[in-house]
Amino acid sequence: MIFEHKLETPAEAMISITKQVKEAIAQSKVTDGICVVYCPHTTAGITINENSDPHVVQDILLGLANAFPRLPAFRHDEGNSAAHLKASAVGSSAVVPIANGRPLLGVWQDTYFCEFDGPRTRTFYIKVIEC
Amino acid sequence: MIFEHKLETPAEAMISITKQVKEAIAQSKVTDGICVVYCPHTTAGITINENSDPHVVQDILLGLANAFPRLPAFRHDEGNSAAHLKASAVGSSAVVPIANGRPLLGVWQDTYFCEFDGPRTRTFYIKVIEC
Amino acid sequence: MIFEHKLETPAEAMISITKQVKEAIAQSKVTDGICVVYCPHTTAGITINENSDPHVVQDILLGLANAFPRLPAFRHDEGNSAAHLKASAVGSSAVVPIANGRPLLGVWQDTYFCEFDGPRTRTFYIKVIEC
Repeated sequence: MIFEHKLETPAEAMISITKQVKEAIAQSKVTDGICVVYCPHTTAGITINENSDPHVVQDILLGLANAFPRLPAFRHDEGNSAAHLKASAVGSSAVVPIANGRPLLGVWQDTYFCEFDGPRTRTFYIKVIEC
Repeated sequence: MIFEHKLETPAEAMISITKQVKEAIAQSKVTDGICVVYCPHTTAGITINENSDPHVVQDILLGLANAFPRLPAFRHDEGNSAAHLKASAVGSSAVVPIANGRPLLGVWQDTYFCEFDGPRTRTFYIKVIEC
Repeated sequence: MIFEHKLETPAEAMISITKQVKEAIAQSKVTDGICVVYCPHTTAGITINENSDPHVVQDILLGLANAFPRLPAFRHDEGNSAAHLKASAVGSSAVVPIANGRPLLGVWQDTYFCEFDGPRTRTFYIKVIEC
């Protein structure tokens, strides 16, 4: 089964979508398999990281901005090449195994939708596969 | 089904392989599932990013070179450690859901083979899975 | 089938887990499919890179430290935000096609568990899927 979700995002953020992932697995009634979370945008991505201290997410966004700054040599008209770079660095999908009807996320892991060039209305997909 | 493709690459490039992905899905006659695009090389990778303005791809390669420069402390004899780093940053695969016989790529998304240490003859695989 | 493994890690390392991947595929008796290697931690990850010259792995860790340094502005109490960044950059999983009962890893490719904030006892999963 595949689930489509919409999100309203701010300029830059990592938004936990673990709740939607767990709901998709529950609705699919899949006990063993994998789950693919997919972002169909080119200045946003999906990553898995800490769910406890919100400073981690802020530090990750800060660290990505430091690693991938806006360079004078960039030529893309829209001026958001750094956001495209961050999207390719974190990736457009996450794949998580499912066991006993639950994603095998670690205790400290959440699945995040990463917005690097908002605010926008964004879409993401959750594909749940029995296997 | 799995499909193997060859590519001749320049020194550095992101080459769209979306056409091959769509063809693989069509030939597989899979309407719902996922598609895994895999790069079996260690100085090349697979990423998904913008298909419209070719400056985006140039800016991504520029930004990766800025983030992962050749460092004096590198010890790998071949001198291409920066290319190995870029390969791990973008990743060796992309996973895309399939719906209605088509990859769920966003309007602006293409799948790219990323060459970081060419020119070479490269291989990539497209695995199409019904589920 | 899904396999769970434990690892004792040093402060920072990339540890080849290709042997465990091959064994999981053999035990599953899957000839064609995919293999998902998953890391349930937020300061560690999974990547695929060179298996031949051990300097490559050292250079990758050096290059990641250069791209994602500890910044004065980081606010996460534990002081390991750089490790969280590296985890999101390399990613928490790898997906490898399986053909003829073997992972389609290239000649120079190994699958690595990446420790960015050890020493710790770590877990990883290998999900083998027939398709």
